[in-house]
Amino acid sequence: MDAGAYRQRVAAALAEVAERGSDGVPARLVGPVRYALAGEGKRLRPILAQLAHSACGGRDDIIPVAIAVEIIHTYSLVHDDLPCMDDDDVRRGRPTVHRKFSERDAILTGAALIPIAARTVFRAGRKLGYDDGKCSAICRALLRGAGAEGMIGGQLRDLGAEGRTLALEEMESLHSAKTGDLILAAARIGAISADASPEKLGALEKYARALGLAFQIMDDVLDATGSSTTIGKTAGRDAVLGKSTYVSILGVERARERAEELVKDATDALEARGILTSSLLEVANFILARKS
Amino acid sequence: MDAGAYRQRVAAALAEVAERGSDGVPARLVGPVRYALAGEGKRLRPILAQLAHSACGGRDDIIPVAIAVEIIHTYSLVHDDLPCMDDDDVRRGRPTVHRKFSERDAILTGAALIPIAARTVFRAGRKLGYDDGKCSAICRALLRGAGAEGMIGGQLRDLGAEGRTLALEEMESLHSAKTGDLILAAARIGAISADASPEKLGALEKYARALGLAFQIMDDVLDATGSSTTIGKTAGRDAVLGKSTYVSILGVERARERAEELVKDATDALEARGILTSSLLEVANFILARKS
Repeated sequence: MDAGAYRQRVAAALAEVAERGSDGVPARLVGPVRYALAGEGKRLRPILAQLAHSACGGRDDIIPVAIAVEIIHTYSLVHDDLPCMDDDDVRRGRPTVHRKFSERDAILTGAALIPIAARTVFRAGRKLGYDDGKCSAICRALLRGAGAEGMIGGQLRDLGAEGRTLALEEMESLHSAKTGDLILAAARIGAISADASPEKLGALEKYARALGLAFQIMDDVLDATGSSTTIGKTAGRDAVLGKSTYVSILGVERARERAEELVKDATDALEARGILTSSLLEVANFILARKS
Repeated sequence: MDAGAYRQRVAAALAEVAERGSDGVPARLVGPVRYALAGEGKRLRPILAQLAHSACGGRDDIIPVAIAVEIIHTYSLVHDDLPCMDDDDVRRGRPTVHRKFSERDAILTGAALIPIAARTVFRAGRKLGYDDGKCSAICRALLRGAGAEGMIGGQLRDLGAEGRTLALEEMESLHSAKTGDLILAAARIGAISADASPEKLGALEKYARALGLAFQIMDDVLDATGSSTTIGKTAGRDAVLGKSTYVSILGVERARERAEELVKDATDALEARGILTSSLLEVANFILARKS
């Protein structure tokens, strides 16, 4: 898999949305929307959706649909960084949106990205010839991941967890909502768009859930061991905020082991259904190997 | 039309969403979501959707679908009131969400309401036996109204207009985006759910656009002439913020006349297509007569 090429396709599709979204939008919003979408992200979610689609026998270029998940992810980062949330100044190696623009721009931009994401599904889905049934199934998977029981609920629990020590189970459930649900949405979108069987969909859901947790664990490991330059956001932030992390509970070594176990669970689930492509294996391994 | 009965149905449907939305949502979010949705609003938008539906010959109780517009409207109010936006303490006669809870709760609650609204369309639409095509048409109408070129764009232009004097045209275009687009979405949802002809849809769109502007004009008139107790939010706020209003440009009397003209345009559009029901006439007149 050429991750760089995928990332370029994602960036191009996002740029198109930012451009198109600018019809009738006042200049003041176009800037922050573009800025937010243009960050140098890993683009894990849309790439995962595309790979899941292909693994299930799909032959479409679903990146223009799958970027909807990245748009929702971007909105969550913009709001997460706000002064009354995580109060962060750096994201993906650049000033956060409220730092670069203003707090009110960041709040409006974040909220604007949600309908932009949902409309992207319908617009891009139709271009691929998907009927209303498929488009709305994809949209519902997206909204479920973005919803209060998913990502937002996880954000709240995360904020509520500052300054107190969590048990491992509590933290896993928190993170599986906060970051896991959108990764799950990405896998679902890939499977739905490929008309995958319920068995394959189920296997991809298992894979995505395990991967989401592994991803978060490695995030904590990086936060504890990396530098701000390498990881593109303020390092050591969790310790400053008094947040429980996998590292504070398990230590670096056992946290890494837990991530390895989860990645094995993830790939086993796909293998059992015969859809462990080399690219999906590569994504799983990337999560363990990543440095940022 | 028994507006009180409609409002009760809207409140009941919203309460059900707040309740159902609570599956898996951490306690901390359930409170603010319920609180935000439970305010004593006029519920103009879902009621208008229902009346538009009936005027076009629809026979469904579409309130459970139409409250999606009210949910989006509620989210916009929650964010509008934030300290970095209009910084308001009172809304619908109660403390604003960030006052009652916290700023971060208000930001998360507002954002959570967007996917809740869109999912409500699919869930309630299916219960009414609507197919995916109809549900997604309704959802798209909703998202278009909530989007960056609509409501959010208008909010931004509104904030950008503080402290400078606007021409009448500039203000009408601003308000038609800020409040008009969701009223338009309500009318569209009513028409789409009733499988209305393009002509009837067009007439309802004209009606909604004119009504939206008239509504905003009367809002300005009330802000300039009412008390905080009567209007349920801080009175005289616009003058404090140095905002141009219809009243500051036209004066109270001419502003009121402009609203009357618009209401006449609105009802004329419906009459020309034979869908001016007594209820839709009543809504139009209510806008001129309202005290809060």
